[in-house]
Amino acid sequence: MTAASSIAADDRCFEDFVAGTVAEFGPIAVDETEVIAFARRFDPQPIHTDPAAAAAGPFGGLIASGWHTASLVMRILVEHYLARRASLASPGIDELRWLQPVRPGDVLRVRATVLEARRSRSKPDRGLVRTKIEALNQDGQVVMSMAAMNLFLCRNPDAPFE
Amino acid sequence: MTAASSIAADDRCFEDFVAGTVAEFGPIAVDETEVIAFARRFDPQPIHTDPAAAAAGPFGGLIASGWHTASLVMRILVEHYLARRASLASPGIDELRWLQPVRPGDVLRVRATVLEARRSRSKPDRGLVRTKIEALNQDGQVVMSMAAMNLFLCRNPDAPFE
Repeated sequence: MTAASSIAADDRCFEDFVAGTVAEFGPIAVDETEVIAFARRFDPQPIHTDPAAAAAGPFGGLIASGWHTASLVMRILVEHYLARRASLASPGIDELRWLQPVRPGDVLRVRATVLEARRSRSKPDRGLVRTKIEALNQDGQVVMSMAAMNLFLCRNPDAPFE
Repeated sequence: MTAASSIAADDRCFEDFVAGTVAEFGPIAVDETEVIAFARRFDPQPIHTDPAAAAAGPFGGLIASGWHTASLVMRILVEHYLARRASLASPGIDELRWLQPVRPGDVLRVRATVLEARRSRSKPDRGLVRTKIEALNQDGQVVMSMAAMNLFLCRNPDAPFE
């Protein structure tokens, strides 16, 4: 099966997302300065902002805010997975899980598995794609996972339903 | 019922989160400069980064990245809802939904409803709290919702189970 990512992002449409396809993207590095800056603004807990306090805590050092990790993953998805012109706003995310600590110096990659691609019957110019997203670190551990919902316009909005 | 937020954040523990309690926090303003800066780094889609392109798009103007909105909500939760010393890392989030566009100039507040507070039987020094989190804009529209899971240490780890 061909992964959606083999189609140029500008041309990618609902039809290019096929259930069962898997693709991996990245890497993206986790930078300590950004970990601290992100957390100071959005998640000001010492485990994310204070290296000394974090070193004495349960993880033995700073860890990234889970929202920072999710945002880094989103960057990868925008660059490599979503459609550039056919993407509509996302309805949401299910089962977002932070499974392992993400630390400064980690290098993440993102695995996308298309769970379901369902054309809308009420708005047949578009379809809903559900994707299992996993972020893995340099040791191959899954550090975060989620099931993302995305709406994409169809290349052939007048095609009959199969 | 007493909301957890009536207990000083430094002293707040698992026991202070009681199912059915509701509290509201905020406000937090959505700033256009930050909307664009956040999206340039984490969600570089024109609807979030390019005012002219966004004005011609489906929302008639810039909207915040959903991850930015979630991060703003997290800031409110850290400041007003979570426990400062008794918070452990969050396992994750369910049913994250972006329900309405969030625009520069919007002013959000956050409503937290404790859905469930369940002491751990395997680790009786802590408990899991599930909270329905809703972000509302200045017009009272719910713009984002999610069910958050948080682990908190107990004030009385040796207390018998009820």
